[in-house]
Order: sequence, then C-alpha cells, then structure tokens
Amino acid sequence: MTEDIQRRPPTSVDVARAAGVSQATVSYVLNDNPNARVSEKTRERVREAAERLGYVPHASARALRTGHSGLVLLPLPMARTGRLAQEWLDALGDALNDAGYTLVYYGERKLKGIAAARDWAALRPVSIIVDSERLTKASVELLKSSGTRAVFGIGSEPSPLVPSMVLDHRQVGELAARHLVERGCRRLGAIVPREAGIDVMGANRWRGVCRVAPDAARLDLAFSEDEARELVAGGDLPDGVFAYNDEYAMLLISALHDAGLRVPDDVAVVGADDLPIASLMRPRLTSVHFDPTANPVELVTLLDEIVRGEREAADGTVVDLFAPRLVVRDSA
Amino acid sequence: MTEDIQRRPPTSVDVARAAGVSQATVSYVLNDNPNARVSEKTRERVREAAERLGYVPHASARALRTGHSGLVLLPLPMARTGRLAQEWLDALGDALNDAGYTLVYYGERKLKGIAAARDWAALRPVSIIVDSERLTKASVELLKSSGTRAVFGIGSEPSPLVPSMVLDHRQVGELAARHLVERGCRRLGAIVPREAGIDVMGANRWRGVCRVAPDAARLDLAFSEDEARELVAGGDLPDGVFAYNDEYAMLLISALHDAGLRVPDDVAVVGADDLPIASLMRPRLTSVHFDPTANPVELVTLLDEIVRGEREAADGTVVDLFAPRLVVRDSA
Repeated sequence: MTEDIQRRPPTSVDVARAAGVSQATVSYVLNDNPNARVSEKTRERVREAAERLGYVPHASARALRTGHSGLVLLPLPMARTGRLAQEWLDALGDALNDAGYTLVYYGERKLKGIAAARDWAALRPVSIIVDSERLTKASVELLKSSGTRAVFGIGSEPSPLVPSMVLDHRQVGELAARHLVERGCRRLGAIVPREAGIDVMGANRWRGVCRVAPDAARLDLAFSEDEARELVAGGDLPDGVFAYNDEYAMLLISALHDAGLRVPDDVAVVGADDLPIASLMRPRLTSVHFDPTANPVELVTLLDEIVRGEREAADGTVVDLFAPRLVVRDSA
Repeated sequence: MTEDIQRRPPTSVDVARAAGVSQATVSYVLNDNPNARVSEKTRERVREAAERLGYVPHASARALRTGHSGLVLLPLPMARTGRLAQEWLDALGDALNDAGYTLVYYGERKLKGIAAARDWAALRPVSIIVDSERLTKASVELLKSSGTRAVFGIGSEPSPLVPSMVLDHRQVGELAARHLVERGCRRLGAIVPREAGIDVMGANRWRGVCRVAPDAARLDLAFSEDEARELVAGGDLPDGVFAYNDEYAMLLISALHDAGLRVPDDVAVVGADDLPIASLMRPRLTSVHFDPTANPVELVTLLDEIVRGEREAADGTVVDLFAPRLVVRDSA
C-alpha cells in the first residue's frame, strides 16, 4: 500500500477543526451561500484551511443546496458523433457549466431499454440527453422515478416520450434532390451506406430524395472501392446522385473518374457535411452544409426550467439542432 | 411543479419495507454481495420490490464495497479527439465497465492547473486520464489528497509526474522522412499546421523529419486553399513533403495539381492517419497508419492495481498508445 492510498482524503470536518469553526460554517463559506452571515475574516480562515489541507467540496455538496446532482449525462459513444456535433456538444458543455451543471459523456453502448436506464440512473443524473431510439416508456419512467428530472431525446424525429432535439435527415436529401432536378437531372439516385449505425440515417436521407423524385433509385453501398467500381460498371446509373455524405461522394467520384465518366456532365454528385475536403476535390464538391440552430444557452435554460419544475417535462418541445443549406460548387 | 418532481425517488428503505426485510439485506441482494447468506426466495422478493418501486442502487453504493467511486474521469473536449482515438476510448470504456469502473468524458476545457484539478476532484473520480500538459505537481497532489488514486497523463512525451500514455509524434515524421529519402528525394519539408491545438503535434512531427534530414524545411500552413496556392507559387518547394496528415496532404496535392505540378514526380507527398480518403485520392496517398498497441484490458489492469494499492502510482510506467506504420501507395 502506498502512502497516497492509506491517507484518508480530508473532509469538511477536518477543515472545520483546523479553522476553529463549525462544519456548517465551512459549508456556507465553500459553497458561497449568500444567505449565511459569516465575516470576511472567518471566510478567509476557512478558505486558508481548506487550501492547506487540500480539501475540495464534493460535487454532491451542491446537491444539498439545489436538491439535485447537477450531472447531465450524455450516453453517447464518442466514435458515433461527427465533428460538427462534437463542437456543438463542447459548446453545450460550456453553457451547462456556466449554469452550474456538469455535462459528462458516458460511452456505454451495449445496453438498451430498461437495462440501459438502470445503468444510467445509477449515476443519479438530474438530466439525460440520449438517442431517442434507446428510450422506451418504461425506461423513461424508471429514470424519472430514480430522480432524473429532464430526459431529452436526440434523433431524426421528435420522440413521443420526451422533449426532442431533432435533425430531420429527410430535409437533407430533399434539398440535394431539388438542386439536382433544377439543374436538369432526369433520373435521381441516393447512396444509402451499408454500415450499421449510419444506415438508418442514410435511408432517411434517401426518403427525402424520394419526396422530390418518387422513383429515385436507392443505391446501397459499403465504403469500399470494389463496391463503388461495381456500382459504376453495372451501368444504368442515374444522372444525378445524392451521395449520402462527402466521403461517399469522394468514393463515387473516384470510381466514376476511373471508369472514364465525367462529373457533373455524365453524373452530377451532391455530398453532405461540407467537410474541408469538399472544396479540395476536383471537381469541387457541391454539398449540404449544416448550420447549428439550437442555441446551447437556450437549451440549458429549457433544461434548467424542467429541472426546477417550472416547466412540464413532457410538453412536446422540439428543438431543431441544425439547419441544412446547400453549398453549390462544381460537382452538381 | 409537476408530479414527477414532487415524487421522491424510492430508497433502499422503501424497498426493505415493501419486501419485509432489513435495509442491509436489500443492500446485500442488490449489490450481489457474495458473502451474505440470503435465501433465493428472499432475494427474489427484494428484486421484485425494487423492480416494482423503480429503485436503482446509486453508483456510490459500490463505493461502500470497494472504498471508491469507480468513476474514471477523462477531461477531454470531444472535438479535440480524432476518430481513431475515439474508437480506442470507446473500447477502453467497455473494458473499464467490465472491471466495474465507469468511464465518463468531461468536456470542461477552460481550466488549467490547480483550478482544473479542483473542478475534476469535485466529481470524486478514483482515476483520471488527462492531457499531461494540463497537470502540475500541485494539481496531482490535490487530486491525490482528495481521493483520486490513479492519475494518468496522455501526451507526446512521458510525464515526470504520473504514469503516461504516449504517442511520440517525432516517430511519425521520422518514418515518413525515411521513406522519402529512400525513394530518392533530396530536399525534404514538413507541413506544420498553424491551427492552435494541433500546431504542437505538427512541430513534433517536423522535428522527427529533421532527425532524418536535419535541414528539412518547416512549411507553416493554415488549412486554406489560398495559403496552399501561395506556398506552391512561391516555388523552391522541396521534392519530398510530409504533409502532417491526410487532409493537409489533400490540400497540398490539390494546389500542386492546380499549378500543373505532378505528384509524385515533381513533389512526393506523404500523409498521416490513413483516413478512408487516402486511397480515394489520385494519386493514391502514401500515409502513416496508426495501429493501436495499448490493450485497453491491460491498461485497466494497471489502473486497477494502482487503485487497489498493489502498485506504485508513480512508477514511471509508459504505455505506448499507437505504433505508426507506413502504408505505401502512389503519392510517394
């Protein structure tokens, strides 16, 4: 056993003893309780003792003031989130911090339904933001009965169970398809990635293309040069393709070029995400750009109102996360 | 106030009352304590009551058995981590879960040194994994005195303060440079991105190039087509360039092509990360691939040994996170 482990972490009792005050006074001072009348001299003595002993108030000390842990849980595997979403989530974390909450990402990814809810609830979050599809009626009830006051869903569609943050992927496909039709394409197709995890998103984007062109071809494709080559070699390609995202667009365009076909003259291609590589491709890629529309500070206000009981937790609120917009370059 | 909020979450006392057993028995059963002799019939009654009331044991109930929170804190903004690192971190999260720990990512990113340590310590993690450069001697001491038993650093170099997970970026540049020299390049250069956050990594990779070619040019470049065009127009380019990563390689190659230069004949280019786009570029991009070498399960064993006091917390352990390896394609 090392000394570090045998040494008991200092408690507020130790600080009180060292400063010659009551434990309640330590709590008032270190938690900045504005209602407590404690002289500046005493406050200094407490702070000095806490500093010297290395005492840090437990986050749950906050729970005593606010009645909750302040923990906002985001059970989201890191590898599942795109760069744009990550920047937005970091901004959300800052806004929550400013409001006295703590955002933690929790990467558990095997559990679903009740088992997942039980696992999340063990951390006693006051709020949870999670893929809508991982929530069931029973799991939302379990979360609430164990003290999670604000449950939010994220997904392609509003959740019937909880307030939702939504990115409607059909809008993305619709926007791309409208552009392809306007520039004169007569047969449309949309790539749907075969990869699990993004296949659902891809199918939703394809459905959006079908709103504009009801007979649009669904082109299922794995992220593989062999498959892309086969798709192109099969002939009978549409003359306008929404390629799901920029990386798939690059995959398709490489295969088209290798087969001697011209973009956009033979096949016009639209990507999505507007990654930095979009403008580096030749031809430069026309792509759907996402503008964040959900103001993290407004979302935190909503969350805080639900947590404090000033607003219904199940009022059908829908927050649009991003607004898609077309950036027209040379590929379509 | 909504009903959800007014309703008090059920406690183990409620479960004990409903099941007609003592609170200790509830704790034994729900925490799977193997030392407790409780009949299967009683166990079932307790589980049934817990289920009916929606009672979930608090994660800190585990603390009573193990003497610690089990929380492993990773204070890492999501937007800072690459896809490869994210997959590895998700695997680490799974391995920690299997060993009874809980990995949480915590995106706070404004604080440093003691202020950061105080913020992290408030969550009472038993272990913390953090950028080595955010740690100071005083902050490590504060973490340990507040109960964080295993502090790990991540960085380009081993930390003098704590066990480290290391990715030596000089090796990456060295590997790329050696290949460029072997294929006959006579003047080497390395792109160092101007973007804050990756500039340090870039400078380390450039230093690795200098190990092989001491007079290698340092090509500072923002991720901008204008700057890339100027760099190429300036002439006097090396005939072998390590482009920092695959996206910068694509930026450089686009600018070279636009200026009528050939890759690799006029300028050979090596990327890094071996992203899916590497093999889609024309010419296909030679790139440094990273193989994960740190087995998450072994790392969890190390962490657990330190937590349980079976191993020194400051024994200078260095874990290599990834092994770089060159994937040779057509661009160099």
